[in-house]
Amino acid sequence: MAEALDDLDALLHDAQRAARALAIVPAPRRHAAIEAIAAGIEGAADAILAANAEDLERGRANGLATGLLDRLLLDPARIAGLAAAARDLAALPDPVGEVLRERTLPNGLELTEVRVPFGVIGVIYEARPNVTVDLACIALGSGNAVVLRGGSAAERTNAVLVAAMQDAVEGAGLSRLAVQTIDRFGREGAGRLMRARGLVDLLVPRGSAALIDRVVTESTVPVIETGAGVVHAFVDRAASLPMALEIVLNAKTQRTSVCNSLETLLVHRDIADEAVPALAGALAEAGVAIHADAALPGGVAAAPLGEGGWSTEHLSMDIAIGVVDDLDAAIEHVNRFGTHHTDTIITDDAGAAERFLAEVDSAVVMHNASTRFTDGGEFGFGAEVGISTQKAHARGPMGLPELTSSKWIVRGSGQVRS
Amino acid sequence: MAEALDDLDALLHDAQRAARALAIVPAPRRHAAIEAIAAGIEGAADAILAANAEDLERGRANGLATGLLDRLLLDPARIAGLAAAARDLAALPDPVGEVLRERTLPNGLELTEVRVPFGVIGVIYEARPNVTVDLACIALGSGNAVVLRGGSAAERTNAVLVAAMQDAVEGAGLSRLAVQTIDRFGREGAGRLMRARGLVDLLVPRGSAALIDRVVTESTVPVIETGAGVVHAFVDRAASLPMALEIVLNAKTQRTSVCNSLETLLVHRDIADEAVPALAGALAEAGVAIHADAALPGGVAAAPLGEGGWSTEHLSMDIAIGVVDDLDAAIEHVNRFGTHHTDTIITDDAGAAERFLAEVDSAVVMHNASTRFTDGGEFGFGAEVGISTQKAHARGPMGLPELTSSKWIVRGSGQVRS
Repeated sequence: MAEALDDLDALLHDAQRAARALAIVPAPRRHAAIEAIAAGIEGAADAILAANAEDLERGRANGLATGLLDRLLLDPARIAGLAAAARDLAALPDPVGEVLRERTLPNGLELTEVRVPFGVIGVIYEARPNVTVDLACIALGSGNAVVLRGGSAAERTNAVLVAAMQDAVEGAGLSRLAVQTIDRFGREGAGRLMRARGLVDLLVPRGSAALIDRVVTESTVPVIETGAGVVHAFVDRAASLPMALEIVLNAKTQRTSVCNSLETLLVHRDIADEAVPALAGALAEAGVAIHADAALPGGVAAAPLGEGGWSTEHLSMDIAIGVVDDLDAAIEHVNRFGTHHTDTIITDDAGAAERFLAEVDSAVVMHNASTRFTDGGEFGFGAEVGISTQKAHARGPMGLPELTSSKWIVRGSGQVRS
Repeated sequence: MAEALDDLDALLHDAQRAARALAIVPAPRRHAAIEAIAAGIEGAADAILAANAEDLERGRANGLATGLLDRLLLDPARIAGLAAAARDLAALPDPVGEVLRERTLPNGLELTEVRVPFGVIGVIYEARPNVTVDLACIALGSGNAVVLRGGSAAERTNAVLVAAMQDAVEGAGLSRLAVQTIDRFGREGAGRLMRARGLVDLLVPRGSAALIDRVVTESTVPVIETGAGVVHAFVDRAASLPMALEIVLNAKTQRTSVCNSLETLLVHRDIADEAVPALAGALAEAGVAIHADAALPGGVAAAPLGEGGWSTEHLSMDIAIGVVDDLDAAIEHVNRFGTHHTDTIITDDAGAAERFLAEVDSAVVMHNASTRFTDGGEFGFGAEVGISTQKAHARGPMGLPELTSSKWIVRGSGQVRS
C-alpha cells in the first residue's frame, strides 16, 4: 500500500532542508560521508544480499527477463564493487565554489559567479541497484541532497541500501535526510516527484526510452534527458578501409547493450562496392545481423530494418547499413534519424571530417574514433551521472560539475543605481 | 481564424533547417544580418507605425489597461530605439566556437568542448513589440533561429516587424526562415510550440507570472524560467543606517515595475526600534505604502500584507516590512518566501555578510548594494534575454552565451575501446 502523498511532500521538504545544510558543508566532510557509505555497504552486506534474494525470487516468480534479473543481482563481488565505486567518488575533486566568471564594474561592484549545488536532485531509474549507490554518492560529491525512485523490482534491495547509506551519512555527522528513497510511495510518488516545482531542483531519469519519455513529458521541474543512442558511423569515400573495419567492429560488438554502441553504418557510394561487402562480411563473421532498406552492393544479404526504421536502437548484435550519395546525405541522415548522442566519421579527408564535426548536431561528434568512447570514465570525469542528449544545461557525459548550478555574488560598498 | 497546426509543424521544420544552416555561418555574416535588421526597421517605420496604430485602437476598444497600452505603443523615437538596440547587439562578441574544455586522453584522442548554438529557440511573450526585435537579434547573435509567439494585442505590429526583419535577413544573404512568428496559429499554436520536442531546443517565456507558469507546466521542451522577483533587503544589526536608507530607497523606488525592485524589507530586531521608523519614514515620504503582518516598532502604521502574504510581488510603490530575530531568521524568511531572484544584506559585519551570501539560495545575492543592479546591461552582458530564476542551464541575467549549448568534438587516429 502506497503511503499518502502528503507524507511525500513532507519528505521533499526534509530533503530541501538537508540540501540547504549540505550546500555549506566543506568537501572533506562530504567526502568522509561517502567513505562512510562505502564502509556501511560492506558492513551491511548480509542484509543487502538477503533483501536482494527476496527481490530476485519475486522477479523470477513474476517472470522477469534474464537480462533484468542479471541487472538486479547483487553478489559479494558486486557489493565490493559498489563500495569501491563509492571510494573512487570520494576521491574526486570538489566542483562546489569554483569561480566561473568574475569582474569588477566601473562603480566598484565586485561580481563573482561561483558553482553551487543544485539543492535537491531527483533520480528516477529502473532495476539496477548500483544506480542507487552511485547517484547518492555523486549527489553528495557535488553538495546535493538526493531523492531516489528506483524500480519496484529492486524495492527491497534499495530499501536496505538506502538505510545503510543513511546510517553512514548520519554517522559521518551529516543529516540522514540528504539521501532518501520514495519507493514506498509507488507510481504516484514518481508522478508527484516530477511535478514538485520549488522542492526538486533537477530530475535525472535513468533507464529505458519509455521511462525517459514519461519523465520528460510529465515533469514540470527541470529534467536532463539522458539516453537513447541511435549512433552512426559514416565511412567516407576517403576512409582507410582497415581503420573503418576496426572502428566499426569495435563500436558495434565491443558491448552491444549500451547507448554508445553503433546502430547504423553509412557508406559513401563511391566506395560502397568494395567497402560494404568487406564491412558486412566482417560484421557477419563477428555474429552481427545486417539490416537494410534496399539491396546492398556486392549482393550482401540483409534483413529489413527494425520497427523504428532508420531510428531503431537495437542494443543487440544487429546493425543497419545504408549507402549514401555523399557527405551531405550522410550528415542529413544522421541529423534526421539519430538521437544526437554520438556519431563518427571515418575519413582521411580533413575537410570532410571538419564538415561532419561542425554540421552533425550531436552531443559528441568524432573523427576516426570508436563511438564507444562516449563515457564519463573514458572522458576522465571519474563519475558519470548519465549522457545528456539534450542541449540545455549539460550535453554529453555528465560528471560532478554538471550536477551543479551557479550563483552570482555581488559585493558592494553602498552602490545604488542611478 | 488560426491556421492548421500541420502548417505549424512545417514551419518548425523550416526553422530547424534554417538553424542548421545558421549554425555554421561565421559571426560577421550574422552581425551583418543584425545590422540589416536595424536598417530594415528604420525603413519600414511608416508601416510599423500604421500597424501599431491598428493594434492600439483594437486595444483601446477592448479596454486594455493604460500600462499595457503604453508597453504596446511604438512612436518614431521608440522605433529608433529598436534599431539602435539591434546595432548594439551586432557589436557584441560572438560566443559560438568558444572552447570550454579540452584535453588529450592517454590513448591520443583529442577532446574539445566548444560552444554551439542551441538551434531553434522559441520565445513566448506578451504585449511588448521590443521583445520581438531584441530576441530575434539576440538569437542571430548567438547563431540560433527563433520562433516568436507574441501576445495577440501586438499581433499586427509584430507581423510587420517580423516581415521587415525577414526581408533584412534575406537581403543579408541568410535564410529568412531563421526568424519566424507563429502568432497566426493562435493559442493552440503556443501549445504546440511548447510540446515540439525534437524541433524546438529551448523555450524562453517572457511576461507575467501566469504566462511563465503556463509555459513551465505545459512544456515538454527545455524551458528557462525567467522572472518573478519577490526581492528582499535585510538590514542587519551591524548595518550602517545611512547606507541602508540609501539602498532601500533606491531598490524600492528607482523603478517599481521591474523584477529586481525591492518587495520586502527585513530588519534585525536588535536595531528595529531605531531603524524601522527611520526606514519606514523615508519610504513613506517617497510615496511608498507600508505593509506588515504585525505591529511595527515605533508605532509605524502599516496596511496588511498583499494577497500573497510575504510572497507578494507588488511591482508598485508598496513594500512589506518585517522584523526578524536574527540572521538565521532572515535567511530562512528569504529562502521560504522569496523567488530566488535577488536578495541583499546591508551590514558592516563581514561574517554575517558571507553567511547571507552563502546560504541565501538565490540567483544573485548581494552585500551592501541595491538589488536594481541585477540586469544584463549593468552586469556588462550587452544584451539580456531575461533573468533566469531556475538553476538548470543558466542562473541570473542571461546574455548571448546563455543562448548556446556545447558539443564535444573528438579527434582520433583510429582509436578503439578495449
